[in-house]
Amino acid sequence: MTTPVVRAGVIGYGYWGPNVARNLAETPACEVVAIGDLMEERLSLARRRHPGVKTTMDWREMIADPRINAVAIATPVSTHFELAMAALTAGKHVLVEKPLAATVAHARRLLEESERRRLVLMVDHTFVFTGAVRKIRELVNDPAFGDLYYYDSVRVNLGLFQHDVNVIWDLAVHDLSIMDYALPGRPVAVAAFGMRHLPDQPENIAYLTVFFPTRVIAHVHVNWLAPVKVRQTMICGSRQMIVYDDREPSEKVKVYDRGITVNGVESPEHLYRLLVGYRIGDMWAPRLDTTEALRVEAAHFVECVERGTRPVTDGSAGLRVVEMLDAASRSLASGGRPVPLGEEQNRA
Amino acid sequence: MTTPVVRAGVIGYGYWGPNVARNLAETPACEVVAIGDLMEERLSLARRRHPGVKTTMDWREMIADPRINAVAIATPVSTHFELAMAALTAGKHVLVEKPLAATVAHARRLLEESERRRLVLMVDHTFVFTGAVRKIRELVNDPAFGDLYYYDSVRVNLGLFQHDVNVIWDLAVHDLSIMDYALPGRPVAVAAFGMRHLPDQPENIAYLTVFFPTRVIAHVHVNWLAPVKVRQTMICGSRQMIVYDDREPSEKVKVYDRGITVNGVESPEHLYRLLVGYRIGDMWAPRLDTTEALRVEAAHFVECVERGTRPVTDGSAGLRVVEMLDAASRSLASGGRPVPLGEEQNRA
Amino acid sequence: MTTPVVRAGVIGYGYWGPNVARNLAETPACEVVAIGDLMEERLSLARRRHPGVKTTMDWREMIADPRINAVAIATPVSTHFELAMAALTAGKHVLVEKPLAATVAHARRLLEESERRRLVLMVDHTFVFTGAVRKIRELVNDPAFGDLYYYDSVRVNLGLFQHDVNVIWDLAVHDLSIMDYALPGRPVAVAAFGMRHLPDQPENIAYLTVFFPTRVIAHVHVNWLAPVKVRQTMICGSRQMIVYDDREPSEKVKVYDRGITVNGVESPEHLYRLLVGYRIGDMWAPRLDTTEALRVEAAHFVECVERGTRPVTDGSAGLRVVEMLDAASRSLASGGRPVPLGEEQNRA
Amino acid sequence: MTTPVVRAGVIGYGYWGPNVARNLAETPACEVVAIGDLMEERLSLARRRHPGVKTTMDWREMIADPRINAVAIATPVSTHFELAMAALTAGKHVLVEKPLAATVAHARRLLEESERRRLVLMVDHTFVFTGAVRKIRELVNDPAFGDLYYYDSVRVNLGLFQHDVNVIWDLAVHDLSIMDYALPGRPVAVAAFGMRHLPDQPENIAYLTVFFPTRVIAHVHVNWLAPVKVRQTMICGSRQMIVYDDREPSEKVKVYDRGITVNGVESPEHLYRLLVGYRIGDMWAPRLDTTEALRVEAAHFVECVERGTRPVTDGSAGLRVVEMLDAASRSLASGGRPVPLGEEQNRA
Repeated sequence: MTTPVVRAGVIGYGYWGPNVARNLAETPACEVVAIGDLMEERLSLARRRHPGVKTTMDWREMIADPRINAVAIATPVSTHFELAMAALTAGKHVLVEKPLAATVAHARRLLEESERRRLVLMVDHTFVFTGAVRKIRELVNDPAFGDLYYYDSVRVNLGLFQHDVNVIWDLAVHDLSIMDYALPGRPVAVAAFGMRHLPDQPENIAYLTVFFPTRVIAHVHVNWLAPVKVRQTMICGSRQMIVYDDREPSEKVKVYDRGITVNGVESPEHLYRLLVGYRIGDMWAPRLDTTEALRVEAAHFVECVERGTRPVTDGSAGLRVVEMLDAASRSLASGGRPVPLGEEQNRA
Repeated sequence: MTTPVVRAGVIGYGYWGPNVARNLAETPACEVVAIGDLMEERLSLARRRHPGVKTTMDWREMIADPRINAVAIATPVSTHFELAMAALTAGKHVLVEKPLAATVAHARRLLEESERRRLVLMVDHTFVFTGAVRKIRELVNDPAFGDLYYYDSVRVNLGLFQHDVNVIWDLAVHDLSIMDYALPGRPVAVAAFGMRHLPDQPENIAYLTVFFPTRVIAHVHVNWLAPVKVRQTMICGSRQMIVYDDREPSEKVKVYDRGITVNGVESPEHLYRLLVGYRIGDMWAPRLDTTEALRVEAAHFVECVERGTRPVTDGSAGLRVVEMLDAASRSLASGGRPVPLGEEQNRA
Repeated sequence: MTTPVVRAGVIGYGYWGPNVARNLAETPACEVVAIGDLMEERLSLARRRHPGVKTTMDWREMIADPRINAVAIATPVSTHFELAMAALTAGKHVLVEKPLAATVAHARRLLEESERRRLVLMVDHTFVFTGAVRKIRELVNDPAFGDLYYYDSVRVNLGLFQHDVNVIWDLAVHDLSIMDYALPGRPVAVAAFGMRHLPDQPENIAYLTVFFPTRVIAHVHVNWLAPVKVRQTMICGSRQMIVYDDREPSEKVKVYDRGITVNGVESPEHLYRLLVGYRIGDMWAPRLDTTEALRVEAAHFVECVERGTRPVTDGSAGLRVVEMLDAASRSLASGGRPVPLGEEQNRA
Repeated sequence: MTTPVVRAGVIGYGYWGPNVARNLAETPACEVVAIGDLMEERLSLARRRHPGVKTTMDWREMIADPRINAVAIATPVSTHFELAMAALTAGKHVLVEKPLAATVAHARRLLEESERRRLVLMVDHTFVFTGAVRKIRELVNDPAFGDLYYYDSVRVNLGLFQHDVNVIWDLAVHDLSIMDYALPGRPVAVAAFGMRHLPDQPENIAYLTVFFPTRVIAHVHVNWLAPVKVRQTMICGSRQMIVYDDREPSEKVKVYDRGITVNGVESPEHLYRLLVGYRIGDMWAPRLDTTEALRVEAAHFVECVERGTRPVTDGSAGLRVVEMLDAASRSLASGGRPVPLGEEQNRA
């Protein structure tokens, strides 16, 4: 029997960790060796689900374990830096839940450390691995789409408040990682308005505007206090428009073949209007790969470790998303002033 | 046979004017005496639909007509001031299509003129007269709603571009007039981001944020280049939440009885989260009056003329909405800087 | 000025007649010469809308008018036979609202009279002239659709009761005419169950099953007492499936590329199941012609009169639909026994 | 430590068995002692999920085990009778997956055996234990609902074919058990039409009509070859109407306050119509218990064993549902003839 390519330790077995552990365990050439958490009750659950796995309340023990060559981190964002840095320093590959870190400086240091040590640093930008978002990237970058005009997303629900991060870090991170992956071009600035409605709580509603060097505009509405759950994104090009509704059970991505043709003719019926003619065509909903995103992601992680390649959601992508989150939070604090994005955005 | 209370002249018989004329004509105590337009073809249509009506291409003739005591204006916004001022000066009551005027100064002068002459000046903020919006005002101002938290509206479609005004003046005017009518409190500032995607055209997409002196926040997304038509508004209070979907054929207004209770207990299951408990209750869709809004509006205009009372959508409301539109346009031009609203907002 | 091809008299100016008159009047080479109704109030409305039209309360006068060469009938179904027969006998072409007549014998006599006199007899099966149904016919008859398996339709709402006909004659007539036009093959029998829930009223709910000589089955649920309005039809072939939802504002027709492949392999995971493999592909919503159906229909009527050709919805189609309605009513009365369709069905 | 009330053996660990085992294991006063299946792979999965459970490929061994006092059966329907009869004969309480048995005679014998031995015989009519269906029962039996008029259900999807039973036994069983539980009155006959579209396969589409001694009518459309998944039920009373859409994520049950009032006045506008006036009121969606149905069901089973009471879905309910399934299949085979239901229906 050959040794698996990835012999993983999973730190954090609360809400998301079990999904990470299960998908790593079910990926060929990958074995889950150890699971760590601070609560014994969770570790007991982990042992039942992963017979033979070693469990521990001390993450240092896991990082010191020579059998382990990769660490998956599914803990609160404030701990990401310390855990990931320790793992990299110990020579382990790292898969870390989104967002990569709580500050831009921390994210940059993790990226640099992984590059220096030639280790895989992958961020769990889960949506990037869905069939829907992979199809959207393909569509948007096809010449049939025309020029990109805007990205508009509404991601709202009646959700659990988190006391350590505001709604931007909880929900907008998904849109920012989708944009980073699927759209051509890099943003140059972010502005955000928002509000705290409950005492001693972070912002529960926020509106982000993301600026690009071109005529592209992106906007995201995130909200923990909405009466209905909405996950709707419109991506508009000069020749096609996409509606991505993640709540649709079967047709999540719809493509509208509606190009715009400018038509300067004055019509007697619309004396005071300039006519813009619309070429309205078919709509189609392409078939999507329905494999669980985390399964695709786990396989990609194993492949990157095996071949020494960079993941699609590598440390640079993680840093760019943290930069946008950080800029958004600073804009929010300043009353909505657009905050420019640093050179990391433009370097990649 | 008694003389009707309102003997109206209608100026403008293009897209909206026929609706105004038809509803005035079908309102008791109101007669349409004359219809004016610059195109003979439209006047011919007007004569067929309103046998006996006098038609003219010269609005001055209509304003000079002593039989007419009220003028309804359904022309491009750039002409509203000149026409309405002439009508008021000639001692006529005025009903003017939204928005009241193209500038704040013009709107204020119309308001002052109507007050000085004790004439009715009413703005056609149509949505205010729908059963849905009247019900929303009732709900939001009921103690059962709790404190208002936010108003969020998406009003997008694939629409005809107008070359004289941007998408804010065309579409956001509806939300601003709904907010002015239905929400408690007056806004203090407006910020707007947007983009022009077609050469030599005004902004076709815009995001408005409206600020209040309290923790209330309002936001409106308007867009002429959307693949699907959306008319969805969420209005959230501390004890109830409303979803208003104008495209729903029968249940346009839904009320969710979902109050929020802050609950500081740390749970072992969510060590790093502060729990916010949600009281989830029933949803109900109240029965709405389905009378055509313009019919209700025409009857209200006649009643105001008869009794000498101020309309719900009077010149002050019209001025407040124009102030917000103007502030939004200035913010748009300045890259999104919040623009404070003047004293008119706070005087009312 | 040349004489119009069609110089029409319209009998019946209640609910549907005004639509017929308006569309005939707006069709080139067609003129509405006279309008008849039993109520003076309606005739007065007709005169306002059609200046110069002759109005009458005596339909015999219209049929005797030599200027008129075609009669459109929009009266209750019980009067169709007498009016249409009189018009044909007087040498007029006839357009009659659906259904063609109240009995099979009457429908057959009208068909025979029109054939003997070489006059156009067209039935107003309105849906046949919609962009949606014309596209469906095209799709279903394309080899890509595969073999037809079933037609299933739900056509329910909270509707006005009619005291002279049951819900089948009011609503199922639409589906029967769509099936007659769009599906390959002719049905051989009809069964119907239903119920009367209000005293002294006809059946307000009914379920029709329509049998074909092949493995095709069709089913229609019609209902005047439904809490929500539903207009949904599924048409399934061996290689494609269509969903036609007439309440969808823009994508009324959706095509699912979901073929079925029988796969006899026993899988260990499903020991007691025979696997049927599904080839799931894209969905697409073709662009539809959005011209008003009655406009297309009026133009088709004029064309048939001009060229002496048979309309798509000719007397034979009208007879076949009446036969099915009649069979359904007889089945209903007999407790659901399938009633065979006569030779008229198979002759065409 | 006290002995649990229920010490269960679970037979069948394929698709549904794991859910049964998990819910029994998580119910207080209930222990899962043994799990049986014919496939070692499944038993190995069972051991991982239920550490300490005894697994076996021989169900006789389980039934002979004196520690076990209750048996849950989740195997193909053709085996239900033999397994359940053996368990009852051995003095065990029985919980059996729906439908109770493959024939009426078998169902009746199981009922009799359980009554003779005073053992609990419960059928897993899962929907009966959902918050939605329990609420519907409450609503329908409230005087505010008025008289029941009809039950209409559409339960269609693109589903796996089963080679041992037709679509009625697979899908309509849900509606028949919901009707048995929630509606007042017992049906007297069933008619069914259907079709087989694939060679050597059972019927994949069927339409059931269920007759009652009153004016109530019920109808169910079940279909394995539908392009979209639909789970929509309308239940109409003389004063309220219910729409139950199981695919709605949050508002599954909507109640429309739309009573019907017969109004005999002839109106001049509708000379040939009898007016039926509709009292259109509010719609409301009551809050539903969202506990997993199988959890509620497992607790109910334990309670019945403990107290010696009859379950809501007892052997009689199971027999009544099998009788309806059997009558539907016989009607299907006879071309749709209504098949009367036996005295069991009326005895309860």
